[in-house]
Amino acid sequence: MTIRGGDTSRLRRINLVTTLRTVRSQGPIGLTDLARGAALSRPTVEGLVEELLAAGWLRELPPESGQMGRPARLFAFHATGGHVLGIDIGSYTLRVSVADLDGAVVAAHDEQISATAGRAERLAGLRTAIAAALDAGGLTADRIAAVCAGTTGVVTAEGVVKLSVGLPEWTGLDLAGELRAGFDCPVLVENDCNLAALAERWRGQARSVDDLVFVLSGVRTGAGILVGGKLLKGARGGAGEIGALPLVGWHRAPVHLTGFQGLPPGTAPRDAAAQVFAAARSDDPAAQWAVEQYARDLAEGIAALVLTVDPELVVLGGGVSRSGDVLLAPLRRHLDPFCLEPPVVAISDLGEQAVVLGAVRRALDHVDARLYDFDAPLPKPFS
Amino acid sequence: MTIRGGDTSRLRRINLVTTLRTVRSQGPIGLTDLARGAALSRPTVEGLVEELLAAGWLRELPPESGQMGRPARLFAFHATGGHVLGIDIGSYTLRVSVADLDGAVVAAHDEQISATAGRAERLAGLRTAIAAALDAGGLTADRIAAVCAGTTGVVTAEGVVKLSVGLPEWTGLDLAGELRAGFDCPVLVENDCNLAALAERWRGQARSVDDLVFVLSGVRTGAGILVGGKLLKGARGGAGEIGALPLVGWHRAPVHLTGFQGLPPGTAPRDAAAQVFAAARSDDPAAQWAVEQYARDLAEGIAALVLTVDPELVVLGGGVSRSGDVLLAPLRRHLDPFCLEPPVVAISDLGEQAVVLGAVRRALDHVDARLYDFDAPLPKPFS
Repeated sequence: MTIRGGDTSRLRRINLVTTLRTVRSQGPIGLTDLARGAALSRPTVEGLVEELLAAGWLRELPPESGQMGRPARLFAFHATGGHVLGIDIGSYTLRVSVADLDGAVVAAHDEQISATAGRAERLAGLRTAIAAALDAGGLTADRIAAVCAGTTGVVTAEGVVKLSVGLPEWTGLDLAGELRAGFDCPVLVENDCNLAALAERWRGQARSVDDLVFVLSGVRTGAGILVGGKLLKGARGGAGEIGALPLVGWHRAPVHLTGFQGLPPGTAPRDAAAQVFAAARSDDPAAQWAVEQYARDLAEGIAALVLTVDPELVVLGGGVSRSGDVLLAPLRRHLDPFCLEPPVVAISDLGEQAVVLGAVRRALDHVDARLYDFDAPLPKPFS
Repeated sequence: MTIRGGDTSRLRRINLVTTLRTVRSQGPIGLTDLARGAALSRPTVEGLVEELLAAGWLRELPPESGQMGRPARLFAFHATGGHVLGIDIGSYTLRVSVADLDGAVVAAHDEQISATAGRAERLAGLRTAIAAALDAGGLTADRIAAVCAGTTGVVTAEGVVKLSVGLPEWTGLDLAGELRAGFDCPVLVENDCNLAALAERWRGQARSVDDLVFVLSGVRTGAGILVGGKLLKGARGGAGEIGALPLVGWHRAPVHLTGFQGLPPGTAPRDAAAQVFAAARSDDPAAQWAVEQYARDLAEGIAALVLTVDPELVVLGGGVSRSGDVLLAPLRRHLDPFCLEPPVVAISDLGEQAVVLGAVRRALDHVDARLYDFDAPLPKPFS
């Protein structure tokens, strides 16, 4: 804590961060208020602001007209100085969102794809979706600060898909490597349920919740866990994979919906859940029984997660979250008796945007971590 | 990071911590080396050392004789300036260990008790055990810096036993409150499996492991989880309670041992496991089958924990850890197919000391946290 000669450049880096954090929390702000907020002298702050303007992290607002005397200079965080890309690689849809450094989504593109598409076809679709989203945002890849992609399956720290039962030819794919070919900036890959958990904490049902179990349910079932506000990824990327345990019913849960006898012939698996829930809502007893069975199997895996980590909140997302009105009561009926205390359960309202929003949040967190790392040089807002 | 006038006392507190940390990591140490190690001026360090000596956190070593000139003063951490108490409240034994501030156990007392003893009898036994351990250490309660007690069951943040199936009349007990009556210092209460997990990381099989699942198995089965080196306690104290899920076999696991047909009549439940494992070791096929069934049921709950948190290591402790040579192979045979990747499993070598050692560690962590908290006044080494 004693600052000595050799630490001058580090002290400057620390002061750059303090200045930037103050602008982000209090801006637009003038130099006098900024010096007070950052607890630095005004000449020091002035120099720091010039450096942050030059680097592209701050922008100067046009002077306010109509004031007496020379108007005070006003500075704000340059949120559009860089952008991040969030990606959701699903079975049927490849979603790409472009967000500015404040997390505002400025452009997006959804690319439809066949659930049976193999690795090459899915990667080609992904490149198309990325190009279209960048184009819609009027940006090129070299203006991107960080990329994060969500995918089903177990993902290593290096961004390799170690295991995926959801997507054909996906196991073993170096997804981070594939994506890095198109970008100079950091590229992250994460399990999609993990990203959805981050999204719920950022903009969903779990704001201010640090200990969360997110359950994605629909054609497949998965989980993402937050402990102390951070993703629980596991030593080998396998946290939240309770669905692999045959003793709990996640492996058979979707079959109650996709295999429901009352479905019109030719109903696609992805449309089955909505139809069964709609029938249950209309008091069809067979559909209600299917929902009951589905809820029971879902509850078994959720109970295992709850009894292991004891979260503050369980958020249910994915396709079935649109049918929360029908599902919640039977789910609670089966879940509560399994648990020591009834867990608090909420239905996601992020819909199909949860994973891609979480990917944006994860990419922004990476940008911020570099920006606020005293021990590294001040980065640029892109590439 | 800019130090201003009003921060002088905080700066001094920070420098006290820096000095103390340097002595603890490098001592016994002289003033010159200490000033260098703490990156402070020698006169500053001299003043800080005097304050730490007066508070009781440091001690001065006797001057080395036979040196030319005035011998340099040498200082060390005053590990015996305060002590902590670790307590393990078991079904059959109440264990109390007294440790100095370096964690060296200087005295201990085990008090036998009936497994059917009710609340009042168990608390009375506990007071006897505490008094005997203090007496053996030549200490009184007012010389204790912190107390931590481990108990079965779900424990709230306030130290109330919310639920215990293991000990009679234990549910609802304000255990922290009961213990506080005998001490002026902080009193902590924690689930016993959680404490055993801390002990494994401190002095057992999980040194340098941050993400751990500890499984206590014997007459009962429980778990403690570390994430990022910290206890996962859960929002309501219920983390690791997977044994409550009837879908996994922990509730029936001990019955394979206690209900084994080949036991001599009148074998006490606590002795059953050792006898079954001994018979299995001697190639008794019925005993081997009982161990196989036990391993299968144990594996089910461990798999649920592993598939939820994906730890670096699973440590198996409790009564059965003495029979690791017989249990490990069947356990792995059943566990590995449940998991995405075979988890690394180790057998504890802390024996019956795991919980009480973990309680000592938890109490020491509390002492250190107060000692190193810049925002609180420098505490005393006891009470």
